[in-house]
Amino acid sequence: MEVKARAPGKIILSGEHAVVHGSTAVAASISLHTSVFLAFPSHSGNDDTLKLELKDMALEFSWPVGRIKEALAEFSSAISSSPTSCPAECLRSIGALVEEQNIPEARTGLASGMSAFLWLYSCIQGFKPATVVVTSELPLGSGLGSSAAFCVALSAALLALSDSVSVDMVHQGWSSFGEKELDLLNKWAFEGEKIIHGNPSGIDNTVSTYGNMIKFKSGSLTLIKSNLPLKMLITNTKVGRNTKALVAGVSERTIRHPDALNFVFNAVDSISKELSAIIESPVSGELSITEKEENIAELMEMNQGLLQSMGVSHASIETVLRTTLKYKLASKLTGAGGGGCVLTLLPTLLSGTIVDKVIAELESCGFQCLIAEIGGRGVEISFNGASS
Amino acid sequence: MEVKARAPGKIILSGEHAVVHGSTAVAASISLHTSVFLAFPSHSGNDDTLKLELKDMALEFSWPVGRIKEALAEFSSAISSSPTSCPAECLRSIGALVEEQNIPEARTGLASGMSAFLWLYSCIQGFKPATVVVTSELPLGSGLGSSAAFCVALSAALLALSDSVSVDMVHQGWSSFGEKELDLLNKWAFEGEKIIHGNPSGIDNTVSTYGNMIKFKSGSLTLIKSNLPLKMLITNTKVGRNTKALVAGVSERTIRHPDALNFVFNAVDSISKELSAIIESPVSGELSITEKEENIAELMEMNQGLLQSMGVSHASIETVLRTTLKYKLASKLTGAGGGGCVLTLLPTLLSGTIVDKVIAELESCGFQCLIAEIGGRGVEISFNGASS
Repeated sequence: MEVKARAPGKIILSGEHAVVHGSTAVAASISLHTSVFLAFPSHSGNDDTLKLELKDMALEFSWPVGRIKEALAEFSSAISSSPTSCPAECLRSIGALVEEQNIPEARTGLASGMSAFLWLYSCIQGFKPATVVVTSELPLGSGLGSSAAFCVALSAALLALSDSVSVDMVHQGWSSFGEKELDLLNKWAFEGEKIIHGNPSGIDNTVSTYGNMIKFKSGSLTLIKSNLPLKMLITNTKVGRNTKALVAGVSERTIRHPDALNFVFNAVDSISKELSAIIESPVSGELSITEKEENIAELMEMNQGLLQSMGVSHASIETVLRTTLKYKLASKLTGAGGGGCVLTLLPTLLSGTIVDKVIAELESCGFQCLIAEIGGRGVEISFNGASS
Repeated sequence: MEVKARAPGKIILSGEHAVVHGSTAVAASISLHTSVFLAFPSHSGNDDTLKLELKDMALEFSWPVGRIKEALAEFSSAISSSPTSCPAECLRSIGALVEEQNIPEARTGLASGMSAFLWLYSCIQGFKPATVVVTSELPLGSGLGSSAAFCVALSAALLALSDSVSVDMVHQGWSSFGEKELDLLNKWAFEGEKIIHGNPSGIDNTVSTYGNMIKFKSGSLTLIKSNLPLKMLITNTKVGRNTKALVAGVSERTIRHPDALNFVFNAVDSISKELSAIIESPVSGELSITEKEENIAELMEMNQGLLQSMGVSHASIETVLRTTLKYKLASKLTGAGGGGCVLTLLPTLLSGTIVDKVIAELESCGFQCLIAEIGGRGVEISFNGASS
């Protein structure tokens, strides 16, 4: 028995940072995925291990199933087939299992993801041997929701081969889950995210699960259906950021200049509302796709200016802006800022030659460029080796 | 009889563009001057010409005084010793006098300044021979108020040697005018500015006349006394701009996104008010100079972000921002944007080595760098060859 699941990453289209101060933000799924392949051995013979293969990094970890069972024995009451938080004590036991593995020094950041994996696996599938292979198109730790996509794809694969969910195993190619199944796997993925991030907002896993776009404000999320196919160039500056310090920096600036910053947050709120209205507006509406794209480009440029006034830009982000501005393309940072990724809207009518030129110029600065459609489908599964 | 007058240029410290939409703006004088030397021949013998020498450009123009008198004869009733607008018909006659001169093709922009010169000269001094020599530390047409500084210095020199103004001709070095004299010469300079710019705001000549800083909102100007010596690096990108098109662009954007832009303008208003409060606050106040400078740097960065959200930045401005950001220095465009000049605050404690590095890097991009103190004295005169 085997299944493959893939879940998309996300971008923040508008409203990062301002959302902390009560503004509306908009997040969207991107057509870059993390895929999880799950296979149970046909004969549960002498191969009694749980294997986790991280293909992109050429890393493989494995645990004797008995070893996991033993480590988690005293927490059997906490292990439930419905989404549950991993108790702190149990997380320590799992941490010990992870530490037994030979994680390269440069990859110690993987440890929390491996803990999330062991928790989700044990809860949903119990203690049995399997092989799990992870591949990803998403750069890690760059604000594109790679950890959430991993948790969502993993939960999807685990649930698809469990009794708690009934799925159509005959369908050819990628297929979606029903609403109820999505709600369940989103909850599981959120438990995984909590192990990785401590106190996640739940936005990343929700976008990865349901796809499309999400409007969020003061903790409440609204799914919005995109009627506008948008293509973005995502430039990964590869500059690491300290999200907490950036968020704190905006708050401190707000204390120093409350009037100015509150007007800035209100401006961002208007931008997010306008953006989501354009994206939801009917295809046959007043504005052509080109007009909508122009409007979105302008709103992105405005949002970027406001983020700069919050103090979360960075020389690497400025380099991307400067480069894309030369080609009259609008860009904004996405996520925490201070490095990380920058979005550039690629209008439908933009020639491929220009796109190639922009990418060549950005890559010559040492940046990584990805192209993605945004607002597409959420998590999907395939039982017959669908190509990613 | 001879006199030398010098008048400072100006920068917009905050609020450009937003001021058109009702926000407060702050302008400041800079320690870069345009100087006008005026000399009447000791023997009004056979040298019966009015000479205008533009020393920096190695250009010299001259008119027989009789020729000027003849051309303006029919407008004698309009020529007054108190500040008067040049009637359209008269401006055409003056324009003909200017066209007779041999202006190099690359310098046709000088024509309106020469018209202003002939009008102010004829009104204040009548028809008599003289030599006028102009030198300037201000780059032309880059938003630093070079035309206003010329009109102010010219009016000052002309009035100093006229009967309408009594000045202390014995004082050594540079000396200032009295309040009443300043008001008069500011009005004359404004008439000159009208010939050059059509419909100027009056801010440039007012800053150049009175020095210090000026807060302006909805057409009303308030002089503010600076208690904080500030040093700025002024980077001239040398990219020409179309101010009218930039102003119109912001208005069009405001029509498209009224809510967002109105919040942006309100944020700018708060920034201008904060800035002027810091500058006016007593030296012995709560905050040290370093703390005030940090505050001003932050407000400049915020204002720049808001200007970007209005869409008036430019790749050349981004290059300056990116470069100074590397050295943790705050910058903002000044004036219309779309090229022009960029301000960078040079904190008191910044080492000269860093300043040299930043300048070298900016100049390697083809930009011109100037250092100026801001908020200093206005127009001054000297009767004994004070060095500029």
